[in-house]
Amino acid sequence: LHVLAEKVAEVQELSVYEMNELNRGSPKYLRFSDVKDPITKQPVNALGDLVPFSNKLYDGSLQTRLGITAGLCILIEHNSEKNGDRYEAIYSFYFGDYGHISVQGPYLTYEDSFLAITGGSGIFKGAHGQVKLHQIIFPVKLFYTFYLEGIAKLPSQLTKPTVAPSPMVEPSAAAKKCEAGAALPNFTD
Amino acid sequence: LHVLAEKVAEVQELSVYEMNELNRGSPKYLRFSDVKDPITKQPVNALGDLVPFSNKLYDGSLQTRLGITAGLCILIEHNSEKNGDRYEAIYSFYFGDYGHISVQGPYLTYEDSFLAITGGSGIFKGAHGQVKLHQIIFPVKLFYTFYLEGIAKLPSQLTKPTVAPSPMVEPSAAAKKCEAGAALPNFTD
Amino acid sequence: LHVLAEKVAEVQELSVYEMNELNRGSPKYLRFSDVKDPITKQPVNALGDLVPFSNKLYDGSLQTRLGITAGLCILIEHNSEKNGDRYEAIYSFYFGDYGHISVQGPYLTYEDSFLAITGGSGIFKGAHGQVKLHQIIFPVKLFYTFYLEGIAKLPSQLTKPTVAPSPMVEPSAAAKKCEAGAALPNFTD
Repeated sequence: LHVLAEKVAEVQELSVYEMNELNRGSPKYLRFSDVKDPITKQPVNALGDLVPFSNKLYDGSLQTRLGITAGLCILIEHNSEKNGDRYEAIYSFYFGDYGHISVQGPYLTYEDSFLAITGGSGIFKGAHGQVKLHQIIFPVKLFYTFYLEGIAKLPSQLTKPTVAPSPMVEPSAAAKKCEAGAALPNFTD
Repeated sequence: LHVLAEKVAEVQELSVYEMNELNRGSPKYLRFSDVKDPITKQPVNALGDLVPFSNKLYDGSLQTRLGITAGLCILIEHNSEKNGDRYEAIYSFYFGDYGHISVQGPYLTYEDSFLAITGGSGIFKGAHGQVKLHQIIFPVKLFYTFYLEGIAKLPSQLTKPTVAPSPMVEPSAAAKKCEAGAALPNFTD
Repeated sequence: LHVLAEKVAEVQELSVYEMNELNRGSPKYLRFSDVKDPITKQPVNALGDLVPFSNKLYDGSLQTRLGITAGLCILIEHNSEKNGDRYEAIYSFYFGDYGHISVQGPYLTYEDSFLAITGGSGIFKGAHGQVKLHQIIFPVKLFYTFYLEGIAKLPSQLTKPTVAPSPMVEPSAAAKKCEAGAALPNFTD
């Protein structure tokens, strides 16, 4: 651990896909706010609601299952005009034996946002910078681009050519099944 | 995004005011602890209570509406001697198109504290250092001084001469109304 | 605060013990998930459960009471195979007048993990790197090794020779009683 792999001076881009395959009991919407629409009388999302979540994580080429995401979304405000919500999000991205990246910042259901990279472990220890969140299909398919500073050169396994985000994209069948060669060794599950 | 604006070597101070104008449904006190005072039988704040919140954010000169704060306070302990509480706080400060700053650390209702700057986005990407929290009036008026390291030179719009904190200070009428020239373009709301 | 103590180039190790002495009402298990084992019908830990906590903190030599830990564990997944749980953890370590260290990352009840150091205050301001969590006895006795980067040289009071972690280790009687000389001045309580 005291061998300091040489940090790279420039910003390194890392793209990943976060997929909710509806098999991790996620998200778990805890409706603690108890606010109703004055006209319809139906519950509306409001401050007080908390949303723990955990989804699957694939590399940008959608050929390799990496691990998972895990954390908490804090509902801040419903935006009727944009028909969506602002959350404050605190979570991590897990890359099996490579380590993890932690983030903190805004998740808006109706537009892209940038979150802070707060740190990491393993090859990502000491990471800082920002990450762009791009939601493809709410809330089950998201594409991220990390702009990582302060870490050593990323392994080529994580930087294969990215599949451009669109609603139709899916991980390869082998990656979905976590087959050898299509998943990180000890991918986080 | 790959143009690295030249980071400044010294610590840069940034002061802001956080104001609860009682119109964001905040704070939302979730009393999950279920602890009663043995004598009065009234509920007392205790571990288990969670407090999501979001307030308005103004610059240190109180002439410009910047955005909002957003996050979560975790009640850690009620301090009867000091007639107040210790919280662990995880939240962000939003500066419209400039980006955001994320923090993590102690919020004590009875004295000043220093939180960690965990990161940021936009002009604050890669930010680190600490921020001093000074509560003027519990829990509606707070003054912060960020000691920012690792970012480019702050824009002058954010570093106008600070109004010294006191219970009477208020944002300018124009800033409260978010008038052009008294609010950041695309201030976070 | 503008005197930048000279940052040390190498990684500095800091070891601490976290002890739950069952006198802080911690942990507070908030069972919001409402999932039952299909056979036994008993509640099982699941996504939705939130666990605020706060324990006591001692130095690695177990001779000095330093302060406390404080934060939140988010249950991500119960692992039946390993008879334990994955949490996402967001918390801080408090060292009295020295300041604090904030962390974010995985807490697994069945194996060691590395969390991200997201920042700190006081002597730990600007800290980054990773911390190794080693659980000695679930969930009351834990041993951590911080691999701190970006801060000045640690005071010798915090880096006394470490007692090797084992189930039998306990803080000295003087440290448990927070006697002068066996506790930091203004240790966090």
